[in-house]
Amino acid sequence: MNLEAIITAAYQKTKIQKGKGALADYIPELANIDPSKFGVHITTLNEGSFGIGDSEEKFSIQSISKVLSVCLAYSIEGEAIWKRVGVEPSGTAFNSLVQLESDNGIPRNPFVNAGAIVVADILYSVLENPKKDFLEFVRSISGNDTIDYSAKIAASEMDVGYRNAALCYFLKSFGNIKNEALDVLQFYFDMCSLEMSCKDLSRLFLFLANEGTRVLVPSQVLTKSQAKRINALMQTCGFYDESGEFAFEVGLPGKSGVGGGIIAVHPGHYAIAVWSPKLNKKGNSYKGVKFLEEFTTQSQFSIF
Amino acid sequence: MNLEAIITAAYQKTKIQKGKGALADYIPELANIDPSKFGVHITTLNEGSFGIGDSEEKFSIQSISKVLSVCLAYSIEGEAIWKRVGVEPSGTAFNSLVQLESDNGIPRNPFVNAGAIVVADILYSVLENPKKDFLEFVRSISGNDTIDYSAKIAASEMDVGYRNAALCYFLKSFGNIKNEALDVLQFYFDMCSLEMSCKDLSRLFLFLANEGTRVLVPSQVLTKSQAKRINALMQTCGFYDESGEFAFEVGLPGKSGVGGGIIAVHPGHYAIAVWSPKLNKKGNSYKGVKFLEEFTTQSQFSIF
Amino acid sequence: MNLEAIITAAYQKTKIQKGKGALADYIPELANIDPSKFGVHITTLNEGSFGIGDSEEKFSIQSISKVLSVCLAYSIEGEAIWKRVGVEPSGTAFNSLVQLESDNGIPRNPFVNAGAIVVADILYSVLENPKKDFLEFVRSISGNDTIDYSAKIAASEMDVGYRNAALCYFLKSFGNIKNEALDVLQFYFDMCSLEMSCKDLSRLFLFLANEGTRVLVPSQVLTKSQAKRINALMQTCGFYDESGEFAFEVGLPGKSGVGGGIIAVHPGHYAIAVWSPKLNKKGNSYKGVKFLEEFTTQSQFSIF
Amino acid sequence: MNLEAIITAAYQKTKIQKGKGALADYIPELANIDPSKFGVHITTLNEGSFGIGDSEEKFSIQSISKVLSVCLAYSIEGEAIWKRVGVEPSGTAFNSLVQLESDNGIPRNPFVNAGAIVVADILYSVLENPKKDFLEFVRSISGNDTIDYSAKIAASEMDVGYRNAALCYFLKSFGNIKNEALDVLQFYFDMCSLEMSCKDLSRLFLFLANEGTRVLVPSQVLTKSQAKRINALMQTCGFYDESGEFAFEVGLPGKSGVGGGIIAVHPGHYAIAVWSPKLNKKGNSYKGVKFLEEFTTQSQFSIF
Repeated sequence: MNLEAIITAAYQKTKIQKGKGALADYIPELANIDPSKFGVHITTLNEGSFGIGDSEEKFSIQSISKVLSVCLAYSIEGEAIWKRVGVEPSGTAFNSLVQLESDNGIPRNPFVNAGAIVVADILYSVLENPKKDFLEFVRSISGNDTIDYSAKIAASEMDVGYRNAALCYFLKSFGNIKNEALDVLQFYFDMCSLEMSCKDLSRLFLFLANEGTRVLVPSQVLTKSQAKRINALMQTCGFYDESGEFAFEVGLPGKSGVGGGIIAVHPGHYAIAVWSPKLNKKGNSYKGVKFLEEFTTQSQFSIF
Repeated sequence: MNLEAIITAAYQKTKIQKGKGALADYIPELANIDPSKFGVHITTLNEGSFGIGDSEEKFSIQSISKVLSVCLAYSIEGEAIWKRVGVEPSGTAFNSLVQLESDNGIPRNPFVNAGAIVVADILYSVLENPKKDFLEFVRSISGNDTIDYSAKIAASEMDVGYRNAALCYFLKSFGNIKNEALDVLQFYFDMCSLEMSCKDLSRLFLFLANEGTRVLVPSQVLTKSQAKRINALMQTCGFYDESGEFAFEVGLPGKSGVGGGIIAVHPGHYAIAVWSPKLNKKGNSYKGVKFLEEFTTQSQFSIF
Repeated sequence: MNLEAIITAAYQKTKIQKGKGALADYIPELANIDPSKFGVHITTLNEGSFGIGDSEEKFSIQSISKVLSVCLAYSIEGEAIWKRVGVEPSGTAFNSLVQLESDNGIPRNPFVNAGAIVVADILYSVLENPKKDFLEFVRSISGNDTIDYSAKIAASEMDVGYRNAALCYFLKSFGNIKNEALDVLQFYFDMCSLEMSCKDLSRLFLFLANEGTRVLVPSQVLTKSQAKRINALMQTCGFYDESGEFAFEVGLPGKSGVGGGIIAVHPGHYAIAVWSPKLNKKGNSYKGVKFLEEFTTQSQFSIF
Repeated sequence: MNLEAIITAAYQKTKIQKGKGALADYIPELANIDPSKFGVHITTLNEGSFGIGDSEEKFSIQSISKVLSVCLAYSIEGEAIWKRVGVEPSGTAFNSLVQLESDNGIPRNPFVNAGAIVVADILYSVLENPKKDFLEFVRSISGNDTIDYSAKIAASEMDVGYRNAALCYFLKSFGNIKNEALDVLQFYFDMCSLEMSCKDLSRLFLFLANEGTRVLVPSQVLTKSQAKRINALMQTCGFYDESGEFAFEVGLPGKSGVGGGIIAVHPGHYAIAVWSPKLNKKGNSYKGVKFLEEFTTQSQFSIF
């Protein structure tokens, strides 16, 4: 099979489709992105790498950072983190407070906002310099020291992040936030403001296709068992209220962000990143999902 | 790897553990089962088959039948069935009416009771003799003509199935049941009353490990794409409100029933069935889940 | 104060307003009513009675019958009925199943459908001939032996009453229906099918303005305390999810039905009935509510 | 009727009952109150006033202040306030976020915490010196210039008020808080920290029994219509999820606070205040409710 050919064909087929959906508009920085941007990059374990389109342009990875933060927390704290956040799909929109009320402040999983805020609190408690240390972690795995936060985006989110502030205080009312609510929130927004390219993303996530171990400079990020579990989590919970649909149509573990990025992992094979800013009604990249459906259909690559 | 040795070791290790949980007790027929029953059977594509314990004793497969009914409906009606039932995890207990109210009568997926009742209605509309034809379908795939319904169990369920009757009428109020509510309900209970052994189950489900095609007497049950999708559905929705946990701990698509049975599928490799009647709090076989955790840990078999 | 003059003025002012809202359309019998019908009748304890418009034409009282059924059950079973149905406002639409799930099958109050179905079950258990005895009860209080059920309306409701059937089976799953679900449902629909005029209604409900005792032929229907409690219930729960608004705007205990009727009671003074078939979004008579707002504003009659 | 005799008898009868329930314990200041405190004071329009027990000892009125704040906002802004807060009973616990999510940030009524926080925001926008002006309003109506906030209680609430902070930010995410969230919250806690005696309370609320007009030094606080509406609101929403029960058992408009105080109003007759710190499961004063049941039963005073 020729990955380059399949990706190029799927890219071209998706590119010419009318771009449905809308840009995330709750902060100006995301609303001003050129909606025609479209990039794809794959990094494989044994067949090299390949990029097409705007694959080397940096964008705001937003919620994709939730996978990175939970990996760091998991590597430090181990299974203990699952006492403070669950592993079940949420069944409702990504920022709902309803389930928290019935579940006594334990978020359903680390990929809903509430869960990622709890993970931020865990990291805030154990890291010496949370913001600096997390960036170091990301840079070291990806091997790209130019990856950085966007202060502008982080500040914008803090300005309008009332619902996340509500979530954070609500979690604190259940005792599931140990630090100052607004400090944790700031750190959470910092992590979401990370900017990198599809190329960076696919390199960064390759360790999840490689049983938890970095490839270029071998070192263990997660144990084999932990890596499998994070993949399982992405499979069941990675796409908000469209996780089932994504598993059904694409068949790979993955995670999306409202910046229009998606990362998908085929354990034992590759990590692939897509970026197209317009979002479908569930908040996932419209063309990103379409491309991955086409790619997995044509490549007959799926975990199922 | 020696599958027999791994299964035997995992079986022995699980067998001696104190059997936590409780029998399903809402109908006498399930409450009277010997709680110490414990059987396992694996059928592989290339490495033969193996059973241990009570692997050839028939039991009530209950909700495992929901996979079979949706496969039959999918094979006949194609993608059209997804207009009447979704593919998302439910996030709440398996018999909840709450989400139906907010989702206008479209059940979240075919494995919650509401979804399986809609699937029963679809089959009831298209099959000449629903009860007979469904049994024929199951027998033909498994290659065992002694598989049958339990009239006693079906009758018991109908006697106390008030919540399912409520679900069925509620679905009908949204127009998502086309036949007489009580007829559909009777057919649904009939399908749930199917009895077979672990050996039968693992043979029956092997087509889902084989891209939709029967193995012994090759014939296509589902297309390759359909089979992958059913596996994805089992992965995200197969274990009620514990689907994420099962993916996290076991890492295989599967489906459980309140009779204590579990089927799990490793696409491209095997189907494995376990039976142990005591259920954990989420309604899944306590030892069944424990065994599969041990088995996949030892065999290092997981899709992730 | 001249009640006739105030009612006539309020009637005229309301009559000429454009009739917003829509007829109840879930059964043909209600959808075919002439939407311009508009009648009012007041019966007082000390100032006689007065009717205007279509005040002597019979219509389907629908949910207004829920007050009568709970009065009969209360008079027979006393405070014991409150173990099976609550006295709190529901806060959601009148036919919701959601709250039943969190409240273990105890309906919030006897005026939501679920509560009225439980009351029907109570009566079905204690009355010799439920349908005949309930009609006798209504006729005897109103002093009008021509009041009767509409077999046509009751049959129509039974034909399309899937949501009420769902409610009834759901209640039975919690053990809060003791008789056959479909028998109770039929009796419930029978009671809702009662037909009478505004004149009949205001005479019928006068006992609630008179401390529980009939006026023309004195006899106690409810104790003084029981009558006060039923009035309090109508005040807090009588208008579905608009009960607060009705208390806020009108300030009298009352009950509405989807046939377009409303009864309101001023304890110690009078009972007033209005009928206009078009319903507002909350399911209450649009002009009925408007008339009562105008009437209580002009008469300065309110319990507050 | 001899009010003194009835009150004294009801007081004695209630006093000797074992005090069920528990003190509010979420802030130390409320948890340290002597649980045996018990006072009653009535102020009538035509029959003088009377107090018994700890009727002149000041306590924290907590949520009773919500009636005062909505009266002030209503008097300034008129009907416009009902665009930002509803008038319907909530049907769930007093601090729930669930309904806000489905109602787009419009609280059900001004007596749930969310509603009172919106009212605080309205006052914060229109008052020159919110904290000072509100106190002035309360002092002027009650005629007691020693009434004051408790800085200690307000500070304690701010320290642990995470759920209210969550509510406030959640409301702001819907655009229903116009000022800085934490400023509004501080003002809300200030108002809840008001301390006064039963005597003060019954004098203060007498204007609601008098069609909105102060009695001793006549001046209009609310119009007649506004006063009736506030009474209707207290009737349907004044006691959290026990409002129906209170209407059912007591039959008067009223409002409770977690400090153990209750005010009840009989329009046209009197205002009566009770204080006993132990709360029942719904958060209302256990003995306070018991006393009012006994008082209205013996006095046969009820609006119904």
